[in-house]
Parts: sequence; C-alpha cells; structure tokens
Amino acid sequence: MRLPAGTRDWLPGELAAKRALEAALRAVFARFGYQEAATPGFERFDVIEAGLGEALAAESFRFTDRRGTTMALRPEMTTPIARLVSTRLRNGPMPLRLCYVAPVYRYEEPQEGRMREFTQAGVELIGNASVEADVEIMLTALEALDAAGLPDACIDVNHVAIVDAVLREVGLQPDEARVVKSLLGRRNLVALRAFCGERGDPKVQVLPELALLRGGTEVLERLLRYVPHPRVDGGIARLRAILARAESLSMGHRIAIDFALLRDFEYYTGLVFEAYVPELGFSLLGGGRYDALLGRFGGEAPAAGWSLGVERLLIALERRGGMEAAVVDGAEFLVAGDDRVARALRARGVRVARALNGAEEGALLAEAQAHGIPRVIVGGTCIEVAGGARRPVEELLA
Amino acid sequence: MRLPAGTRDWLPGELAAKRALEAALRAVFARFGYQEAATPGFERFDVIEAGLGEALAAESFRFTDRRGTTMALRPEMTTPIARLVSTRLRNGPMPLRLCYVAPVYRYEEPQEGRMREFTQAGVELIGNASVEADVEIMLTALEALDAAGLPDACIDVNHVAIVDAVLREVGLQPDEARVVKSLLGRRNLVALRAFCGERGDPKVQVLPELALLRGGTEVLERLLRYVPHPRVDGGIARLRAILARAESLSMGHRIAIDFALLRDFEYYTGLVFEAYVPELGFSLLGGGRYDALLGRFGGEAPAAGWSLGVERLLIALERRGGMEAAVVDGAEFLVAGDDRVARALRARGVRVARALNGAEEGALLAEAQAHGIPRVIVGGTCIEVAGGARRPVEELLA
Repeated sequence: MRLPAGTRDWLPGELAAKRALEAALRAVFARFGYQEAATPGFERFDVIEAGLGEALAAESFRFTDRRGTTMALRPEMTTPIARLVSTRLRNGPMPLRLCYVAPVYRYEEPQEGRMREFTQAGVELIGNASVEADVEIMLTALEALDAAGLPDACIDVNHVAIVDAVLREVGLQPDEARVVKSLLGRRNLVALRAFCGERGDPKVQVLPELALLRGGTEVLERLLRYVPHPRVDGGIARLRAILARAESLSMGHRIAIDFALLRDFEYYTGLVFEAYVPELGFSLLGGGRYDALLGRFGGEAPAAGWSLGVERLLIALERRGGMEAAVVDGAEFLVAGDDRVARALRARGVRVARALNGAEEGALLAEAQAHGIPRVIVGGTCIEVAGGARRPVEELLA
Repeated sequence: MRLPAGTRDWLPGELAAKRALEAALRAVFARFGYQEAATPGFERFDVIEAGLGEALAAESFRFTDRRGTTMALRPEMTTPIARLVSTRLRNGPMPLRLCYVAPVYRYEEPQEGRMREFTQAGVELIGNASVEADVEIMLTALEALDAAGLPDACIDVNHVAIVDAVLREVGLQPDEARVVKSLLGRRNLVALRAFCGERGDPKVQVLPELALLRGGTEVLERLLRYVPHPRVDGGIARLRAILARAESLSMGHRIAIDFALLRDFEYYTGLVFEAYVPELGFSLLGGGRYDALLGRFGGEAPAAGWSLGVERLLIALERRGGMEAAVVDGAEFLVAGDDRVARALRARGVRVARALNGAEEGALLAEAQAHGIPRVIVGGTCIEVAGGARRPVEELLA
C-alpha cells in the first residue's frame, strides 16, 4: 500500500522528535507574546489565489466540492491568517501577534526538503509598519533557530523596494525588470552580464554587482555608489537599523545583506529574509513584510512575518547527529496483575503499560525488553529489566 | 470571504482551550504507554475504501492528482494507522500501543457536533485479542473523559457477535439481518414490532427486546433467557469481564450494556462502545475491536481502539460553563526600550511583547490594557496596569 508521493508517515520515535521541536518553537512564540491561531486545512481557491497570485496558487492541491466550488488545500499559512484577521480581528487592538504550527500542501516534485505535505511554523505581526516590527520578527526568527538547536543558522536579508528602485533607476521597463529579477534571484551572472552587454548603458553595470553584493553595512555603501537615489533610502535605512539592532544583541554576525534574495511570494512589499545552515541547499525559514496582503481581504493593515519548515529543521538536526539524544516517551513500567497498581502509578504521572498476557515473570521481562520498557511490576515486586534488581512496589507508591 | 461549509477558524482564546484539552488527552495516552504516530492528511482512496467500506468512504473528500490517482482526505484515523502498522511495524514487538491527535475530514451536512473538518484523538492497541486488551481500551476511554473534565460521561457497550448470533439464532437471512440491524441501530421499535408481527415466529419477539435491553449484567441474564445459545457465550463473557473490571475500579456505574448500539464502521468484529454525556444528543467517543482490519493491508493482527471528537468535548465543556477559567497564554509584560530587558525576561521563560511605537508611558499603559497585558516596563520601571504600582526592573531580573 503505497503512500501518496511527497507524503510520509511518522513512527513514534520520529514523531516524538517532531513534537519536541514544535513545542520548543511554540515556547519561543509564546515568550515573544505571540498567540496561536488555526484555520481550516482547505480554503476556497479564490481566497488562496487572492493572497498568493496565480503562479503559486497553481501549485496547490485543488478539488471541487459537490456544489461546484473549487477548494484548495492551503499551500501556506500567511494568506489564511490574513483572511482570518481581515474578517474577524480587524477591529481589535493592534498590533496583533499571531503564530501557527500547521500542515500545508503543495503540488511540487518531491525531493529532499520539498514534500507535498509539510509542517509550517511561523509568526505574523499585524498592524504595525515600523522598523521596530521588522526587527522584532527578525529576532523571533533567530531565537526560533536557536531554540531548535541551530544557533549557527544565518539569515540573508533584502528589501524589495531597493531592488525595484535600482531597476527603475537604471531605466528598465516593467517587462525587463521582471526578467532581470528572475535572473538575479537565480544569481545567473552569465545571463545578467549578457543583458548588460546588450544594453551598453554603463548604468546597468550595477546589475551583476547586485547579484554579488553580500555582507554587512559596507554593501549598503557600495550600492549607494552606483545608485545614489533617494528612492532606495527608506529600504537602506531599514536594513541598517536591523543590522544595528542585531549587533547590539551580539547577533550581527548572523545577518547578511543579499540583494539577490528575492522570495517567490508576490505579496512581499519591504523586508524579505531567509535563513540557512551551510550544509543544506535550501532555506530553513523565510519571511518578510507584506503591507498590502490584508487589504486584498478588506483588512488594510501593514504586517510582517515568517514561517519555517519543521521537516527542514529536522533534516538539518539529523545531519548533525540526530535530535539531542532520542526523545524518549515510551512506557516506564510494564505492570501485571491488579489494575490498581497501574492506576496509582499513572495518577503520579508515570507512563505505565499493562501486561495483557498473564503474569509469568520471564515472559514479562522479555516483553519489557522487546519494547524498551526498563521496569516490570509483578506480584507486588518491581524488577529492573537490566540487572534484575528488585524492590517492593510499596516503595514506588510511598 | 466565506469559509468552506463545515470548517472554522480558531482564534487564540478558542485555540488555547483546544490545545489544553489535546495536551490533557496526550498526557493520558502517555500514562497508559501509548505513543503518538502520524499519517498524511490524504491517502490513496483505495486505501480508505479498503478500510472503511464503500458507504463511509463515499463521505470522504476526494480529488484526483495530476497522474489520475484518486486521493481522499482521511475521514478517520483507524484505517491509516492500520495501513501504517501493516506496512511498517508488522514485524515489531507486540502489542503496539499507538495514539494520535489529528484533523479528519468528512463530507456530511454540517450541524452541531458534526463538522466537515474536525479533530480526532484516539488510541489503538494492536496485536492482542484478549479481553485484557478490551478492558484496557475501555479504561483509557474513561480516563480520557475524566482528564477532559467530564467525569460523569458514561459508556454504552455492546458486542457485535452477540447481535449477529441472535439474528442467526432467530433464523434471519443475511438480507433480513441487515434490515433489522439498521432498525435496531435507530431503535425503531415500531418498525421492529411490525417486522416481528409479519413473521409470527415467537422466536423473533426477542428483537424489540434487544432494542430495549439496557443496563448492567442483569441484561445479559435476560438475553440468555431468549437466546440460550453457545454462540453468544464468548461475547457475553467479554462484556461480563469488562463490567467486573470497571466495577473493581469503582467505575462500574459508568458503563451500561446496550444491544442496540451498532457503530457505523463496518470493520468492528467484537466489542463496540460509545460515550455520552446526558445533555448532548451525539456521542463524544466511540470505538471497539476490529480484528480483521489489519489483514486488509496484509498485517493480520487483532486490534482494538477508540477515537473521540475533540470539538465535541469542547462543546460539552462549554455547555457546562466553559473550560476551567479561560486558558491564558497572552503576554505578561509589554516592554519598551532596550531589547536586552525583554530578552532577559524571555530567557526566564516569561511571555514578553515588545512595544513598537515609542516609550510614552500613557500610550504604553493603554496598549497593554487593550491587549490584556498586566504589566508595562519602561525606563527601568515595571508598572502594574491595574493600580499603577511601580518597582524597579532589577527586582524582576534579580
């Protein structure tokens, strides 16, 4: 019985590691004042499309209900949260801090780090357009990566207004700008240089440079040499502020400006960022500012947020030698006989499996060993499976 | 922007109550030695149909992927877990104790207690056919209802082999038996009596009685007066054992035998049960023994289990005056100024929202009040929103 392509089962040990990671992430969200919200597993397709645009919506799993309405399994959580806030919370106090941990679905070719069903965890900070809000979501991202056990993960940041302003500044038409952004996003230097060669205009020589500029505040100075235009000032000021604040928390070394970072989602309007660890070729986390998204659902509020792929973090952790030891959540005792002993232990919060096949000691020890249960209780005695040490049950219950 | 029919959003307060309930249920499962497993949100439709039979599979949300394979959002978790165990765990040590908390999807007419997307939590005890296993899952059900805050919820039990044996005993053909079981399940006494009147045979007079017999061990005695046949002995012995064991744990009053309890799922082969609270017209929890299900996926192992509807429990709790107080998970402090104060508090596990709009005290107090945040920190001072008491931040961090 094969599973659908791009999906997987989670056996207990695997799921315990995932649940532990999810709990660590939820704890970070709570410490930053974010509260979890949830939306349905599927939405009307027109809602998804209004949020994501045509290209990404096309990657959604769609089906038609019996009334003929097209539905889609949600391909991400930012659009549903924007819909939720716009319809239910638009008149409440701002800013709103919401978070989520939820499965999402994309019809893509499965490969490492790219499943058709995967789990997104993320935050949305809604109702505030300030650089303070940008800083806050960057810091939550860094803390989440730390809490996950990846304190060396680094974040690349960019500001979509900077790239757009540069492209306008060098005189590109909207069509050309789209092509160049696509080349830039894939860091296709050969094609970018060819494009510049064709144009001849010395101004466009900044484009390959954009794909190469990467680093700290010095790359902002460098960019201003090419494009000393006030239209980039706002974006540059934001990136500067973010770097300075990260610096003040001793996390400056983990953030790099990268003008070629252009995320797929068309809803971003300002800051964009992605987090990486050196050994993996895909991002762990991505986000940014999307001030126009809520307006598409009638909500009209600035917002910023990010989401990470829980399974991608698990891959990164596994590459580094597995989750910190195996997360153990199996039974601590195998108990034969009287129900009341098992019940008394459980009332103390202990994990107790009951023996179902009688009370023969050898069989009980074998069963416990097969299941990795460290202790057996039979006939009023607690026996350690490893070593065989015995003590009266009363000692446990005292 | 409407939601799909039969689905809902969860705002933070609502979701906090649901998450608290899910955590309480997971804790019960762990204390009984059950470990959580997970399966994809959708499966190949032929898998769902193999488990559930045609009628229930027809209630699933289906879609066709781009290769033409029909998929279905899972309508319940027992079939996917049976598939998982049959394909991945069949050679491991038995018994297996698995649990889950997961969304499932059914295309039904939405009404109270019946959503198209809802959350199932449940257990599966696999690889043991004994009455001990039946007892264990009954006890986990009672403990789960207790932990949820519904210690007066009662469980109706039946054994499908008893009903089947009675129908054969009175001479019904398979077609007639199906009709009678359907009438019995709906407790349609009028139609059952009409059926008996047509037949004339005094033996069939037991059928309306079956729909009325409900109670403790005395109803087993009563049944044996009508059908003194060894074919019902096995089932009756099981029910007797379950009642006796519940009695020994002082829970006998919460279990009643009900021969008209016939669950929809065709995979049940022995014990079946459902839990109710008096004020709700739908069951909270249902389950039973399904010894043939794993065999449909090549696994061949006896098994028993149950699942409950998390949203149904929430309805029951809400009817009784809400979840025990509101579950509070919002920020405890609103902090303006230096990032390091917020960070130091978070490092102590405290929930801290950061002020994004400057450090004017009146505005901060107003923002905190609007969000239900009890304390503001600004300029090195912690201020109680209610009352205005002040103390130095150092006291908090000491």
